Amino acid sequence: MDNAATTPVDRAVLKVMLPYLQGKFGNPSSIHVEGAEAKKALEFSRKKIALILQAHSDEIIFTSGGTESNNLAIFGVVRALEKTGTPISKMHFITSLIEHSSVLECFRELEELGAKVDYAPVKENGVIDPRVIAKLLKPETVLVSIGYANNEIGTIQPIREISKVLRNFPENKNLKTEIGSRSEKRRPVFHCDASQAPLYLDCMVTRLGVDLMTLDGHKMYGPKGVGFLYVKRGTRLSPILHGGGQERGTRSTTENVSGIVGLAHAFEIAAAKRKKESARLAKLRDYCYSNILQNIGIERVVVNGDLKDRLPNNINISIPGLDTEFAVLKLDAAGIACSTKSSCLGSDGGSYVVRALGRGGSAETRALSTLRFTFGRDTTKNDVNYLVKVLTKIAARLI
Amino acid sequence: MDNAATTPVDRAVLKVMLPYLQGKFGNPSSIHVEGAEAKKALEFSRKKIALILQAHSDEIIFTSGGTESNNLAIFGVVRALEKTGTPISKMHFITSLIEHSSVLECFRELEELGAKVDYAPVKENGVIDPRVIAKLLKPETVLVSIGYANNEIGTIQPIREISKVLRNFPENKNLKTEIGSRSEKRRPVFHCDASQAPLYLDCMVTRLGVDLMTLDGHKMYGPKGVGFLYVKRGTRLSPILHGGGQERGTRSTTENVSGIVGLAHAFEIAAAKRKKESARLAKLRDYCYSNILQNIGIERVVVNGDLKDRLPNNINISIPGLDTEFAVLKLDAAGIACSTKSSCLGSDGGSYVVRALGRGGSAETRALSTLRFTFGRDTTKNDVNYLVKVLTKIAARLI
Repeated sequence: MDNAATTPVDRAVLKVMLPYLQGKFGNPSSIHVEGAEAKKALEFSRKKIALILQAHSDEIIFTSGGTESNNLAIFGVVRALEKTGTPISKMHFITSLIEHSSVLECFRELEELGAKVDYAPVKENGVIDPRVIAKLLKPETVLVSIGYANNEIGTIQPIREISKVLRNFPENKNLKTEIGSRSEKRRPVFHCDASQAPLYLDCMVTRLGVDLMTLDGHKMYGPKGVGFLYVKRGTRLSPILHGGGQERGTRSTTENVSGIVGLAHAFEIAAAKRKKESARLAKLRDYCYSNILQNIGIERVVVNGDLKDRLPNNINISIPGLDTEFAVLKLDAAGIACSTKSSCLGSDGGSYVVRALGRGGSAETRALSTLRFTFGRDTTKNDVNYLVKVLTKIAARLI
Repeated sequence: MDNAATTPVDRAVLKVMLPYLQGKFGNPSSIHVEGAEAKKALEFSRKKIALILQAHSDEIIFTSGGTESNNLAIFGVVRALEKTGTPISKMHFITSLIEHSSVLECFRELEELGAKVDYAPVKENGVIDPRVIAKLLKPETVLVSIGYANNEIGTIQPIREISKVLRNFPENKNLKTEIGSRSEKRRPVFHCDASQAPLYLDCMVTRLGVDLMTLDGHKMYGPKGVGFLYVKRGTRLSPILHGGGQERGTRSTTENVSGIVGLAHAFEIAAAKRKKESARLAKLRDYCYSNILQNIGIERVVVNGDLKDRLPNNINISIPGLDTEFAVLKLDAAGIACSTKSSCLGSDGGSYVVRALGRGGSAETRALSTLRFTFGRDTTKNDVNYLVKVLTKIAARLI
């Protein structure tokens, strides 16, 4: 029940990885047959991913995961701009209050370096209003970073609509954000962290209208330590890792071949199972919700985030007054793995995502009593029944 | 014969990795039992590595490999200094002409940003004279980065002696390189890229006297895409990946648990086999050298780099007049994988490492005709005999 934190490696994924952890161990940069074999696997993986995204192969840059992809997206744009003579202090950024820490911490670092950052609020349902983004845009805005689906409350953002807002934004003539002569490019770069999306949402970049998009292996039944960044042709990005010039100079290091092969296969399986699995889990999720509300009491449970614009596997509730940090440990003892919020955060301070939904005094209590259940491929109705049973007892302080 | 480019994953290493690619897939940041299990494996791996290095566990920062470790070491020091108010333009660095591209490219980037960098020359035998480093030191020197063993010619640098030079360097009172009150720390930070070393050289940090040391999984029969940076307590380092605050805030991202478990086991095996394997390969290497010289002709072959201060598995020769790029392909066709130079470089321009050895007109011809053979655990005398036979034919233009 904690599939948003990480997913197991699919058996089929492990199977395609193993040859590259055993006999086929060449360095893709070597010119001999072992190197060529590794290079071929690498490029085949790149093509498979590009096909699903409806992108070009040369737009896929492999990284060590979601965090590196987000850092490369944000600092890559910043460093490229710095090289054309724009100081960080002249740059403006837009993100939202509910982004993952690997996005927010980049912006905090940029603020420390003198940049201006606007954190878009979300509506009470956890969804961003594109008009809010429109209002925040300035001639100095160089990058907008909005996640596709939230990791805590699962809300889906109107990426396509936000991309339209950016496209319609008056040309920015003061900043050389992009190659000067191509006027259609002189708008803020749009980055989207889609780490939580691939199992349930369509990730076609042409449809979404993004310039940069983050994906992460271990959130889609692929291995940990590998991910990629989609980089639309023409987007100027400086590397954050310097060296042998791999990944067309954008990300140096010997490629994690087995991980990349696994990632591509996981992404392929995710795309194939997406529709059917989304429908199955949405049903299970709704069943779980209504049972929780019925058993614990609709007056005690606050549902966090929109129920429609939401990942089908995500349940996020607050039970004000309940020590949910302790509840997670009790659930754990009963064999149920779940979490209070993002696993990439310490245990103090409650959920900043849920806090961002709040209006008025109850916001804080709500942010301090969150519980997140995120279903996966192996979650069954029996699991859900068991969860509801145990959770009800915990809420009634019977265990 | 190309083990310096990459090594296969040891069977025993794969065996300890597999559980973390299958059932034990938790996110180490999760508080439930699955998370705790992953966290335990992570910390156990960290302890194993620290023990071999004679370091503290909290001095080991896991990364995605050698390139990231080198980038984190160099830019980590730079960013930390920037935050105390020292601009890059006031910083001076020392490295050598023969470092790996993932070190050199960091310094090229820093030069672009206004830093001053001195590239120490090497002696004709490919070894750095510590007195050269002593002469290059300035009050503004903030970091010295010298590799332990060269990836192309295998020469071993006098790390311990260079560290003594740095320790004896007059205190730098103009720059807050380290915490101001601890005077013994006010010297340039010493970084050592030891990626090529662990199979054959003692990597104890206390003996070497380094502050930062890079190691890479796939150079020691571990997996690709994982490595670590040793960071001596008290060394001020800013992160280059921002996010969830993993690795004590120095390197955010969900940890590559299976890779880290594999890396630690590979490092342990390397340490255990080091002495015996070094002796075996040194003998085999000398046998190979003398046979090459004898068969191809001592007058045609130039040996690149010192034969004593050298990794026991490394052979690097030039055969001026021979198109060695083509020779590698011919050797490949005969089933022998080797390379002309670093695999992390394009095919043009010859070897900058060998060029750095040269004095006079022949240096260029020599740099353009290099061949590198790097033995491994599975290299036998029969392999060497076969190599000599094929190489002799190629040199005589019989194939």
